[in-house]
Amino acid sequence: MEPRAPRADWPFLSEPPSDRIELQRQLVASDPFFRLLGVRLEDARQDHVTLALTFRPDLVQPTGIMHGGLYGILIDSAIAQALLTTLSPEFVVVTVHLDTKFLAPVTGGEVFADATVVRKGKRIAHGEAVVRDEAGTRVAQGWGVFAVTSGMPRP
Amino acid sequence: MEPRAPRADWPFLSEPPSDRIELQRQLVASDPFFRLLGVRLEDARQDHVTLALTFRPDLVQPTGIMHGGLYGILIDSAIAQALLTTLSPEFVVVTVHLDTKFLAPVTGGEVFADATVVRKGKRIAHGEAVVRDEAGTRVAQGWGVFAVTSGMPRP
Amino acid sequence: MEPRAPRADWPFLSEPPSDRIELQRQLVASDPFFRLLGVRLEDARQDHVTLALTFRPDLVQPTGIMHGGLYGILIDSAIAQALLTTLSPEFVVVTVHLDTKFLAPVTGGEVFADATVVRKGKRIAHGEAVVRDEAGTRVAQGWGVFAVTSGMPRP
Amino acid sequence: MEPRAPRADWPFLSEPPSDRIELQRQLVASDPFFRLLGVRLEDARQDHVTLALTFRPDLVQPTGIMHGGLYGILIDSAIAQALLTTLSPEFVVVTVHLDTKFLAPVTGGEVFADATVVRKGKRIAHGEAVVRDEAGTRVAQGWGVFAVTSGMPRP
Repeated sequence: MEPRAPRADWPFLSEPPSDRIELQRQLVASDPFFRLLGVRLEDARQDHVTLALTFRPDLVQPTGIMHGGLYGILIDSAIAQALLTTLSPEFVVVTVHLDTKFLAPVTGGEVFADATVVRKGKRIAHGEAVVRDEAGTRVAQGWGVFAVTSGMPRP
Repeated sequence: MEPRAPRADWPFLSEPPSDRIELQRQLVASDPFFRLLGVRLEDARQDHVTLALTFRPDLVQPTGIMHGGLYGILIDSAIAQALLTTLSPEFVVVTVHLDTKFLAPVTGGEVFADATVVRKGKRIAHGEAVVRDEAGTRVAQGWGVFAVTSGMPRP
Repeated sequence: MEPRAPRADWPFLSEPPSDRIELQRQLVASDPFFRLLGVRLEDARQDHVTLALTFRPDLVQPTGIMHGGLYGILIDSAIAQALLTTLSPEFVVVTVHLDTKFLAPVTGGEVFADATVVRKGKRIAHGEAVVRDEAGTRVAQGWGVFAVTSGMPRP
Repeated sequence: MEPRAPRADWPFLSEPPSDRIELQRQLVASDPFFRLLGVRLEDARQDHVTLALTFRPDLVQPTGIMHGGLYGILIDSAIAQALLTTLSPEFVVVTVHLDTKFLAPVTGGEVFADATVVRKGKRIAHGEAVVRDEAGTRVAQGWGVFAVTSGMPRP
């Protein structure tokens, strides 16, 4: 991340507010969609978030491997959470484009999505995430482009 | 789709086998992951498949709109099913790259992912899918690159 | 394109100004980079632009096929030009994300990139383009996400 | 890169042949398309290649910044060259999907595309590249999916 001088209308803070990470932890823990799938917040610090997911028999494709769409959910959500660590409260981020690259199948255990903020802009933010299995093998990788807006639904 | 002359090792059939569509319908209906989310096979014919999903309170983001990761699952799965309509039984398709573009939020009702096969190759296949809401508004669009393999897990 | 009600700060016009297409034609014809490569404006109307490029021996990869990077230039530029047909003069569009899918090689003749605007937003616009060869075969396809800004270099 | 056991039909070597890097250097230096644009091979070693390009007045967009399509050419070509460092002579790589993310404009000086191989497979390979300007600012980033084939034009 290249630093940029703060401005009055700049949507990002210089560091996370004192209670921000704890709030994100509660948000993820109570989110109905994350509970449905079993997505957990494993780690969070400024511009970085790790989400975790445990293999389950109802999260697989017909061939028995973890459904690839789950990587997309982990990548998208982990990058959004990484952006939220320093986002000002009056702004929201909305995914504009997400790409997922599939590198290896997962047939059990845990997967971890490590997201990093790549660029914070006044209107556009970028982040990437690497998904690894329990053995540390990179199984997927993705990039997300987000619109930063002041609470409006459509950028 | 540009037609290509069939060869002995060509992984695609000239048209769907008589029971193929019905088998795909049963596969989707009994799939544990699709049942968890409520994904249904709405329509299927040669090189085209439509999947449907109904808005539920546990499929949303914190802002109350349908979680964008679900579009990725619909797009990925619909294209794979469209490829399966003519895939020879001894081959499988594996997602290599998936991108999803987010065009408008969904806050209720049904969404439909219409997938079309763009290119069938001996080893690489491409497809795209448009996701629309009940009113017909295009809410997302995606493209998938798939590896065509003879049952081996890693292309 | 779903229509949206015009607003004071809305960056797009309801239709191209009378001299807009002719201005774009001159812009492309006099552009040094397009002249270097031989890119031409073949057709332009509201929300649609076709660019053309002729195969040359110095536009190839070592294997003798047209360099794939040229498809990216055609796709990016054609979508940008399609957005420009109705963009208000005080705004500019800047590419944020571009993806290119390669479907078939080109070894001679002309290629044409037909671009269509998919979504116009206040800050984000989307478009897609199909590249075909002289015989009409789809050889590449791409999607671009653009930031719409009021003349500022970094969104 | 996760190591994989070599097999008889495995398209990659365990390390670059003694004259490989020098051959790639000559290939890039004599390539007509690279000469047209001024693309140079700056550095090459196993699974990594850096290409360089100097800003020129005929490589710009109408707004005066370096044309974004050039990043795509650099990213695509640098990843392909990185794969070539260990590719067996009887195989070729063909780009299947390329995405480019635009992070900052370039208005002068040199740009460098550092490519790294991410995954080598029997039929599919992945690589990524970061483009930086003279000051080291990340101005673009991209990912390429390649088909590995035994000299056949269409995978």
